[in-house]
Amino acid sequence: MSTPAASALLDVIRDWGADKLFTCPGSTEAAVLDALVTRTDVELVLTTHEAVAVSMADGLARATREPGVAYLHANVGLTNGLSHLYAAQLAYSPVVVLNGVKATSIQSREGFTTGRRMRDLVHQYVKSDWQSLTTEAIPEDVNRAFRTAVTEPAGPVWVALSQDLLESAAEVPVPAVDRYRFDSRTAPSPDAVSAAAALIAAARRPVFVAGSELARVRAVEGMVALSEQLGAPVLHEDRRGFERPGFPTDHPNFRGQYTVDHPLVAQADLLVFLGARLFNEFEPAKVPPLPAGTPIVHSHTDPRHLAMVHGVDAALVGDQGLVLDALAAALPTGASREVPPATQPAPRPPSASGAPLRPADVVDVITESLRGTALVGDATTAGGILQQRAHQHGGDDYFVSTSGSLGWGMGAALGIAMGMPDRRVAAVLGDGVFQFGMPALWSAARTGLPVTYVVMNNQSYAAVGAALKRFGGTAVERQDYPGVDIAGPRIADISTGFGVPGQRVDTLAELRECLDAARGVDHPTLVEVMTDPSEFGP
Amino acid sequence: MSTPAASALLDVIRDWGADKLFTCPGSTEAAVLDALVTRTDVELVLTTHEAVAVSMADGLARATREPGVAYLHANVGLTNGLSHLYAAQLAYSPVVVLNGVKATSIQSREGFTTGRRMRDLVHQYVKSDWQSLTTEAIPEDVNRAFRTAVTEPAGPVWVALSQDLLESAAEVPVPAVDRYRFDSRTAPSPDAVSAAAALIAAARRPVFVAGSELARVRAVEGMVALSEQLGAPVLHEDRRGFERPGFPTDHPNFRGQYTVDHPLVAQADLLVFLGARLFNEFEPAKVPPLPAGTPIVHSHTDPRHLAMVHGVDAALVGDQGLVLDALAAALPTGASREVPPATQPAPRPPSASGAPLRPADVVDVITESLRGTALVGDATTAGGILQQRAHQHGGDDYFVSTSGSLGWGMGAALGIAMGMPDRRVAAVLGDGVFQFGMPALWSAARTGLPVTYVVMNNQSYAAVGAALKRFGGTAVERQDYPGVDIAGPRIADISTGFGVPGQRVDTLAELRECLDAARGVDHPTLVEVMTDPSEFGP
Repeated sequence: MSTPAASALLDVIRDWGADKLFTCPGSTEAAVLDALVTRTDVELVLTTHEAVAVSMADGLARATREPGVAYLHANVGLTNGLSHLYAAQLAYSPVVVLNGVKATSIQSREGFTTGRRMRDLVHQYVKSDWQSLTTEAIPEDVNRAFRTAVTEPAGPVWVALSQDLLESAAEVPVPAVDRYRFDSRTAPSPDAVSAAAALIAAARRPVFVAGSELARVRAVEGMVALSEQLGAPVLHEDRRGFERPGFPTDHPNFRGQYTVDHPLVAQADLLVFLGARLFNEFEPAKVPPLPAGTPIVHSHTDPRHLAMVHGVDAALVGDQGLVLDALAAALPTGASREVPPATQPAPRPPSASGAPLRPADVVDVITESLRGTALVGDATTAGGILQQRAHQHGGDDYFVSTSGSLGWGMGAALGIAMGMPDRRVAAVLGDGVFQFGMPALWSAARTGLPVTYVVMNNQSYAAVGAALKRFGGTAVERQDYPGVDIAGPRIADISTGFGVPGQRVDTLAELRECLDAARGVDHPTLVEVMTDPSEFGP
Repeated sequence: MSTPAASALLDVIRDWGADKLFTCPGSTEAAVLDALVTRTDVELVLTTHEAVAVSMADGLARATREPGVAYLHANVGLTNGLSHLYAAQLAYSPVVVLNGVKATSIQSREGFTTGRRMRDLVHQYVKSDWQSLTTEAIPEDVNRAFRTAVTEPAGPVWVALSQDLLESAAEVPVPAVDRYRFDSRTAPSPDAVSAAAALIAAARRPVFVAGSELARVRAVEGMVALSEQLGAPVLHEDRRGFERPGFPTDHPNFRGQYTVDHPLVAQADLLVFLGARLFNEFEPAKVPPLPAGTPIVHSHTDPRHLAMVHGVDAALVGDQGLVLDALAAALPTGASREVPPATQPAPRPPSASGAPLRPADVVDVITESLRGTALVGDATTAGGILQQRAHQHGGDDYFVSTSGSLGWGMGAALGIAMGMPDRRVAAVLGDGVFQFGMPALWSAARTGLPVTYVVMNNQSYAAVGAALKRFGGTAVERQDYPGVDIAGPRIADISTGFGVPGQRVDTLAELRECLDAARGVDHPTLVEVMTDPSEFGP
């Protein structure tokens, strides 16, 4: 009894290998929901907020490198999903957004939950935006959307499907999806490779900066091989562009995270940025983010990032795995250089006993206790510390968004857990973030995925406090920081209310105990750890 | 130590009579937050989600008919606020959205949380969209935004303010706001009034339909007077366009809500729609929503709504108060007609004792127990019943959004309570809605406003179930409704976790007791009433 269009839509989704449909539905999607009753090849994953649907689809896509599908409802559902769609875009995550919209006659009459300019809402976050104009076109339009989403550089797409077209009884063709999948990776031009290789070969103290793109395209091993071939040190990319690890933190050639004042960067006679952004600036830089006069080699899958702000001496456009292959072939084997020894960070002064917990100490316990667990970071203030301390052996050990869209990690962690059923997944969150992502707890409870949520509750928008400190005005003078204090919620209790057992802890010992226990259970849990509200961070 | 631009911005806000700034801040707003430290004339109202900031500003604006100000952060904050901005737009609510954006140099470089096309996100929901280009222009731009927001037909506006311009030490002029406020109401042309009055005077069985616009512009009394002058029955506008009551439900001339099959509508020889939309269609109408051949008089403040879908016999553009004045003057005094008696609705069959609570019975208890309390409705399935039963003596007794943006009512109720400090306010919510509006509980706890939240928990997206029933496919055949079951959360416990004491009840007697108790306390409370999950509604 399903309509041909709804059935064909699900066929296309299935044929692209997407077996899950993340949605927070409305009445416009009735034909698709109805078709799902008898399908076993596509699973409806219900969510209770579009932000969760999008971040789950994104998490799944990041973990599997395959399309994730979010089916959003009307204009209001689309807008609710936009901030996390921005996150997917920045991560080159192939999220296919299907948007159930009202019947065409209602649209033209500005009826309930219609938008006159739906595409304007979404076009800056997607590679393609289209509303199907006929029932017959739906499978083709959706097929093309998938093809566009996965074509490199990959990214989100949007297709609007109106209720009347989906409910029509018209027969529709189903594309042979196989004929629309192709290897869209590209290798850089040989001339570009020669130019970059010549600079690298001539350098005596080259430093490589491994970007998130390496992890996305599974090129971390290639980066390791090139580093070993050349005897060159490797840094992770700058914190603000970091989405996932491009190099193992436990590799002997790893030397920390890129900053312009890193000792190796200051001494380098060549900087080679692979799959990194230059840069995702947070505020106008007080000191230039690149050392003056040092030659730059920059490579990225997406040519948009090359020479966008900073001029380069050599650029390589293409898939980062193929870039690494090309460089490895063009460069001499047998490392003639020695990687300079790592400098150990100064030990932190011990924390006073009985004092409020410091984020750095809490992060130490989290990263120690959860070693081997894939971490998802969504903590504004503690994020920097977490990024430096989290164990990251492979590209799938640590996931962050550079979008600033709070709450992303709560849904993404579930999608990532679905995509890596053999891994444990934990999300490290701030308390501000928590309030943006709460409906994800419903999905955690419903799916039963054994994700561990750790909320570092400093009862503050500490980043706002830090900004007021940098501003250095009346707030600092009076030690009165408006817009910072968000104390109040008992986050563990809220979590328990959703069916995700929560526990509040005030000591590192309790935290350790909770995290150890969480590793042994087969359902989601949440730990709320109270930290010092007076520590605003950098 | 505040910057001149930040101080001037707050001066302009204050001079427009807006003494509250609803925000969920980020670092880009530091200069304004800093300036607020020493201000007593503008209050920072912190929220923990932009959807709450916008809906609180909207609620305040609806209650006071004065501008409400929401200060959102960056692109992600703006997108999080969009669905409720749509609600404000539909209600002609003068919400001024200020949007803190990154420094101009970061914007052009696509830095952290910037958008290349910010205006595209918002332009379809606002009357004006502008990003200030210089520091000196900020007060003028914001002043113009307020002026545009309150100019009739009123509505939301958007101004983006970049961090560098706000933090500049440049001196800025402050506009003399008084000179920018003017009476923007318009009266319909005398010819249009004559034409409409002639039709009304000639009609023997005219029926008036009072729209939400009457309440917004405080013209309900004018509608009462005209109804009495003419001896004409009055209906509320169609449910889907209804935002607030345009006529007292306890007035002897009130005859229920407009539907095309209402007995009075079927018998009418003239329909006069004042301040109503024709119509905010939910789905393509199976029967035409206007009776064939019956002449139509339609008046609205916003000419966009006139003759947009349905042709009219007379149209009156202008302020609904002035329209009513003009009609009253043009029509004979001394009612010659008699208002047909009301037909009593058939009594409902009594509910079985011990059976799951029916929404209709729950709504009866709510509307009886909370008589005199201003109600905010945000319950998808129970909304229709609530609208018919809620006591609505004046235009400020019942507030709804026609936007379909779930969760609006949770923040709006707080803004409405701020705007009407002498009234008790209660919000009637669905459990699906609850999950969209949860961060409003933080604001409820923080402000301490004695708002009563009543959540009708049917553990379902019942509207989706109803849509599947209408679709009549496999779901009905198998009695298997995907996308409907959202059971799980203990909503009362979640509320308590936020510091808003919550209680779950299963019987009408307990509900009555809870609501009676809620009226006597000076803080927010929440009642979760469990209703029948199998009742999908219309």
